[in-house]
Amino acid sequence: MANPTLPAILYEPIVRAALAEDLGRAGDITTDAIVPASHRLTATIGARQAGAVAGLDLAIMAFRLLDPTIQVDIMLPDASRVRPGDAIARISGPGRGILSGERVALNFLGHLSGVASATAGIADAIAHTKARITCTRKTMPGMRALQKYAVRCGGGANHRFGLDDAVLIKDNHVAVAGGVRAAIERARAAVGHLVKIEVEVDTLAQLDEALAAKAEAVLLDNMGPDTLREAVAMTKGRAVLEASGRITPETAPAIAETGVDLLSAGWLTHSSRVLDVGLDHVG
Amino acid sequence: MANPTLPAILYEPIVRAALAEDLGRAGDITTDAIVPASHRLTATIGARQAGAVAGLDLAIMAFRLLDPTIQVDIMLPDASRVRPGDAIARISGPGRGILSGERVALNFLGHLSGVASATAGIADAIAHTKARITCTRKTMPGMRALQKYAVRCGGGANHRFGLDDAVLIKDNHVAVAGGVRAAIERARAAVGHLVKIEVEVDTLAQLDEALAAKAEAVLLDNMGPDTLREAVAMTKGRAVLEASGRITPETAPAIAETGVDLLSAGWLTHSSRVLDVGLDHVG
Amino acid sequence: MANPTLPAILYEPIVRAALAEDLGRAGDITTDAIVPASHRLTATIGARQAGAVAGLDLAIMAFRLLDPTIQVDIMLPDASRVRPGDAIARISGPGRGILSGERVALNFLGHLSGVASATAGIADAIAHTKARITCTRKTMPGMRALQKYAVRCGGGANHRFGLDDAVLIKDNHVAVAGGVRAAIERARAAVGHLVKIEVEVDTLAQLDEALAAKAEAVLLDNMGPDTLREAVAMTKGRAVLEASGRITPETAPAIAETGVDLLSAGWLTHSSRVLDVGLDHVG
Amino acid sequence: MANPTLPAILYEPIVRAALAEDLGRAGDITTDAIVPASHRLTATIGARQAGAVAGLDLAIMAFRLLDPTIQVDIMLPDASRVRPGDAIARISGPGRGILSGERVALNFLGHLSGVASATAGIADAIAHTKARITCTRKTMPGMRALQKYAVRCGGGANHRFGLDDAVLIKDNHVAVAGGVRAAIERARAAVGHLVKIEVEVDTLAQLDEALAAKAEAVLLDNMGPDTLREAVAMTKGRAVLEASGRITPETAPAIAETGVDLLSAGWLTHSSRVLDVGLDHVG
Amino acid sequence: MANPTLPAILYEPIVRAALAEDLGRAGDITTDAIVPASHRLTATIGARQAGAVAGLDLAIMAFRLLDPTIQVDIMLPDASRVRPGDAIARISGPGRGILSGERVALNFLGHLSGVASATAGIADAIAHTKARITCTRKTMPGMRALQKYAVRCGGGANHRFGLDDAVLIKDNHVAVAGGVRAAIERARAAVGHLVKIEVEVDTLAQLDEALAAKAEAVLLDNMGPDTLREAVAMTKGRAVLEASGRITPETAPAIAETGVDLLSAGWLTHSSRVLDVGLDHVG
Amino acid sequence: MANPTLPAILYEPIVRAALAEDLGRAGDITTDAIVPASHRLTATIGARQAGAVAGLDLAIMAFRLLDPTIQVDIMLPDASRVRPGDAIARISGPGRGILSGERVALNFLGHLSGVASATAGIADAIAHTKARITCTRKTMPGMRALQKYAVRCGGGANHRFGLDDAVLIKDNHVAVAGGVRAAIERARAAVGHLVKIEVEVDTLAQLDEALAAKAEAVLLDNMGPDTLREAVAMTKGRAVLEASGRITPETAPAIAETGVDLLSAGWLTHSSRVLDVGLDHVG
Repeated sequence: MANPTLPAILYEPIVRAALAEDLGRAGDITTDAIVPASHRLTATIGARQAGAVAGLDLAIMAFRLLDPTIQVDIMLPDASRVRPGDAIARISGPGRGILSGERVALNFLGHLSGVASATAGIADAIAHTKARITCTRKTMPGMRALQKYAVRCGGGANHRFGLDDAVLIKDNHVAVAGGVRAAIERARAAVGHLVKIEVEVDTLAQLDEALAAKAEAVLLDNMGPDTLREAVAMTKGRAVLEASGRITPETAPAIAETGVDLLSAGWLTHSSRVLDVGLDHVG
Repeated sequence: MANPTLPAILYEPIVRAALAEDLGRAGDITTDAIVPASHRLTATIGARQAGAVAGLDLAIMAFRLLDPTIQVDIMLPDASRVRPGDAIARISGPGRGILSGERVALNFLGHLSGVASATAGIADAIAHTKARITCTRKTMPGMRALQKYAVRCGGGANHRFGLDDAVLIKDNHVAVAGGVRAAIERARAAVGHLVKIEVEVDTLAQLDEALAAKAEAVLLDNMGPDTLREAVAMTKGRAVLEASGRITPETAPAIAETGVDLLSAGWLTHSSRVLDVGLDHVG
Repeated sequence: MANPTLPAILYEPIVRAALAEDLGRAGDITTDAIVPASHRLTATIGARQAGAVAGLDLAIMAFRLLDPTIQVDIMLPDASRVRPGDAIARISGPGRGILSGERVALNFLGHLSGVASATAGIADAIAHTKARITCTRKTMPGMRALQKYAVRCGGGANHRFGLDDAVLIKDNHVAVAGGVRAAIERARAAVGHLVKIEVEVDTLAQLDEALAAKAEAVLLDNMGPDTLREAVAMTKGRAVLEASGRITPETAPAIAETGVDLLSAGWLTHSSRVLDVGLDHVG
Repeated sequence: MANPTLPAILYEPIVRAALAEDLGRAGDITTDAIVPASHRLTATIGARQAGAVAGLDLAIMAFRLLDPTIQVDIMLPDASRVRPGDAIARISGPGRGILSGERVALNFLGHLSGVASATAGIADAIAHTKARITCTRKTMPGMRALQKYAVRCGGGANHRFGLDDAVLIKDNHVAVAGGVRAAIERARAAVGHLVKIEVEVDTLAQLDEALAAKAEAVLLDNMGPDTLREAVAMTKGRAVLEASGRITPETAPAIAETGVDLLSAGWLTHSSRVLDVGLDHVG
Repeated sequence: MANPTLPAILYEPIVRAALAEDLGRAGDITTDAIVPASHRLTATIGARQAGAVAGLDLAIMAFRLLDPTIQVDIMLPDASRVRPGDAIARISGPGRGILSGERVALNFLGHLSGVASATAGIADAIAHTKARITCTRKTMPGMRALQKYAVRCGGGANHRFGLDDAVLIKDNHVAVAGGVRAAIERARAAVGHLVKIEVEVDTLAQLDEALAAKAEAVLLDNMGPDTLREAVAMTKGRAVLEASGRITPETAPAIAETGVDLLSAGWLTHSSRVLDVGLDHVG
Repeated sequence: MANPTLPAILYEPIVRAALAEDLGRAGDITTDAIVPASHRLTATIGARQAGAVAGLDLAIMAFRLLDPTIQVDIMLPDASRVRPGDAIARISGPGRGILSGERVALNFLGHLSGVASATAGIADAIAHTKARITCTRKTMPGMRALQKYAVRCGGGANHRFGLDDAVLIKDNHVAVAGGVRAAIERARAAVGHLVKIEVEVDTLAQLDEALAAKAEAVLLDNMGPDTLREAVAMTKGRAVLEASGRITPETAPAIAETGVDLLSAGWLTHSSRVLDVGLDHVG
């Protein structure tokens, strides 16, 4: 599979915004007061925890927007797995730029690697099955494209990116439409030929209705392994099946082994812990 | 103490950006296809978990930017404590606006309440001491002002907001300056009279040097309770003392009982879990 | 089918930008010099040509951003068909706001209605078939979401909105991958479960390969009616078939009658003529 | 005459916006999946139709913002005339950047060259007269400066750029002021010494009034050649005369031959067809 | 003459930006800590110095963006003359919004009224002549449209607003073109019919050349009254004459009495003193 | 003391905005018409007045954003003192870029050097005392960070940057709180440990109350030298003392000699005159 990519022109605005947010109205008053402009540093961006890397290019951009003469050698690019102690990149240049950019750079790298690592944790746990781990729209405001990219770096698959790129019919929609079938039909009549339709169901009866109406994907909400297995059997490959609800590295294998295609977990993007990364100064 | 505040003009841009991020280029194609423009809904924004509320005004703004006719009654405003099942607010109006805004609204409310709740968890654990819990610059890019506000909602105190509003001298600065005292003196000569100077120290010898140089605050990095107690005794109130490193609801009491003024924890803003909040439709 | 919608929060920025572009650095110096602030006007926004309406809400927003006291009654909302002489809306209020906003308002309404009308012209010509008319990514910079919305107002279906919401494999991709099948397989391995894959083909042999690789849609580029008919027969409903190349109201019926699902035309958005609309002052 | 110019700093924002609009939240998922990062391409940007070039620098910027290593050789810069088959520029570099940027680049180049070519069509038709072709404020929202530049590239002259840089008194203004003379006098009293005053007239009597009031330019709206000739005779060079209404390559010569100074046509910017340009891959 | 106007949509962005600049990342921490949300204030915006008012609508917008419930009564709108002690407006509403907005509001009102007052000082001094006072492009970055508006409020006339809305040929241009006449001819060939051409001259010989080439305006740089009088005599009304250099209320009458049309002064916008205005709390 | 610094990423947006403001919708029509693209210039940026330099890097950025091939040699960087006739920098490159950027570049350099020079004038006058000159929040909208930086370049110290980075209790706050002590206590309870508290007092009794409540700084408003001397004696170094009101180079020495720590003057940023700088073309 191709490596995950994200065009720099898409993330440059948020890196600039994050620097402006941290520099405020006077810049790094500590470093400017203490570190001479001529002082040079070399440092290693290192992992202090096992996981998967995401956001390294954003971290580098943060440094280089402060000082374009900063040089970076990448050892472990995005989507790499890291072990504690691994050097992800080496950075050298004017000390002011490196010290002033450190926190913003690590905030991007730590958070996005955290999302990637959480994803990788599930991906590893279900690697023996055909299922893949996917994300949701429960993301940090302003960070969705980055977090979705981090999910790809961790080996996950992306769910829809917004309200506009796929139909996802939920319980409220079904209630208004008066049933799963009616909801699917209204959606199909309204959207273009490149838009897929997924519907969330609570019961196998609803699944049956969704399959009859030719939904392209069905989200099986909070069903146990036995029900999921039955759903897989009923579906016979006619739709992509996505299981959601309480997906953790511990619960994932049993769910994935039911034969569903996807496991989705909101916490990857709304509640994952940062990956512990730091700048170790070597001179 | 005054309730935490944040002017709406400061967060309106990020709410607009979050809506644009979610609506993409075609809006909520599912809801627009299925829910008639005339359909009206009433729903409750409820807590499914205990914690502290933050971000309710942003959630409301998200709904009302989509449809200004949506009405909201607030039961538990920001900074309130909630128990599972509590209704935080009641919302009613056109169903399209409510359903289309739900995810963005809950993304703000869930994340910021998560930060507030994590803060409150520590604040409660150390309520029997004079110490307060505070945050760091380890924040989500673009979300710093909001996360700092959420810390206040949870009963915490804010650390500096950026590189520009206070001096924080770290080990690299000390190394470049050639010592704690030299670093403090360089900083004092450079900054205005309303800027405080804090210095991070690893040893009591460094603390002594910092106190001699009249640092206004000292960050005691990763010291155990015994050393912290010694630091408090040495300091005799001459500087604010902040303890950092592995602060959790479990470890916090012993640290706070040493007599330090502040406990700081980066994870409040970089790794807190979302507070589980949801929209329950009542009609 | 639900009426086309577009959230106001998505188009407010471009309406503001268009006003700023026209008002420049001094505003409407002609009107401000000649028309007293107290002067009031009533006017009709009328069609001088047959077509379909799109962009009326943007036109109204343009007026009301200049003067929120301007009142508007809508007679023929977006997606309505109009005949020459029809009144689309009636507007009344301070003359300055109406005269200063007239050009920006009509630029939006005229262009978007032009796109809608061009679409409607094809849609009408193929109404006796199951085929629908669709658009492309050949759009005016900055206007894509609006133009796609106008296509919906004219009775057309939307193609993908950008490079990110569906796969469209073109000849260059096929050349790099070494064949239609290889290209489809690389794409399928990389994208999420809600992303459809379309492939552009020049020959029936390529179509066969695309069907074998289970492409969800196939763009048949510049094929004549006989070949298209053959393609439809070969496909047997296994993929959505889209015919492109020289689609006009005159050529469209013969192409649509071949049994393809979609006709796509770039000129709807890159070369359609404005619909002639104007402001007729009634007092 | 100097070649038309437009500072890059003015159009960089719209090029960035157009790329963001097309790349969406995940970038070019087709190309990223299929084309290896190491793959290099060389291509020719060629004209498939006769016309005039405009927007080449924007097209190049689109490519180079995606990948600064892309190299471009310009054969036919903006304002050049092209014949079908002419190579406008040659581009080479990483295939991903070239394929991902192709549509945005061609959207700018095609549309602006379309405006330039439409302008050139009229300019050529009236080249035997002293008259020049000019544009209006009937432009695409957000594109005015670019479209006006394209008019210059096609050999046309620019009319005012907005409501603020010249006075143009229209029928509504005349009605409010109570006459052409009164309107001109109100305007003259209000504007600075570098602002010219033009007035739109429907009759020769109004023209007489405008000349008496020393209008610097008069727009003769929808007058036939005989009336225009009479207007020219009456004016005796005291004002610039602009003829408007149904200006096409066919009608233009007779109008220009009346001796008017300018022919203005809104359709150049609101309804011109794209110039057919494409990327031909040579390796 | 019509009262000076400026559309609110043009200045709303800078008022928002100024508030964001002042509120920073935590808002008005002093007021929020001390003033209860329920506290209400009434205050008068008063002049402590004689001058002319400009910017009152921006000041009001600053308050009302913070709190839309704040009410304002205007006594002396923009372009009014004020004496020390005059009440310009009365404001009442929640004390927090009033106190938090005070500085931003007064920064706009004080600076723009300062520009207006400086302009009025010259305008008054030359009121017995036909000459008018005008401004330059020597403005505060980001404030040009506002400062030009303030010049109008003070009774002055506006010079060009930027490099694009009129030709102003300076010594460097003359040097490159090889003379005043050549420069004017190059300019005339390049610009549209609504663009006026002004040329800066140092000598009467250059003035003669400029008149021969039919420049519409001539800037007479740093000439004494005798030379200016000679210039007026030579010109015989064929061009607008603008005198520049060391224009103060003291020097202006003698210069204006020479018969020139305009006096221009850069210091009105780059070096005028603030008008002393303040908020007097009455309850 | 370290030289004043300001990260380029913070001022790039305002330099871009200032260029856009000046270039308008058509760019520098005069220069583009008259100066060939191949014409090259060399020029000196020179001081015509004594003062202190600030803003040179912004001026250079203005030129180089227009044409990155423009070369600049800096002779007298920011914070340098200049005498009339001094060359600040030498610039060479394409004449179009230099002439088109001249005004924006000089607007930044002239204004910011004006602020720096005004500051330096006071700083020199009180150099024999321990007192320093400081600024206020009475700044030009949008220019605060730049003006504060210019104050540093002139040898001054910065006061708070906004409403959020320090507490400054004014008379209205005292009135609402019911006294100086109560106001200080409310503030102390609300703000973080890195936020200093300053209070403005009108009388020595209020000073006493402020010292008792341990305010970290006290602003002594409009007190004469005798009272200030008494205040210094009372304070005994327990708080930073700031004197404000009518600070000029003439009045400053007597005030500074009272022993206060700071003199603050709003006019440095709201009413300073531009430093006269110009571009002298040498070839």
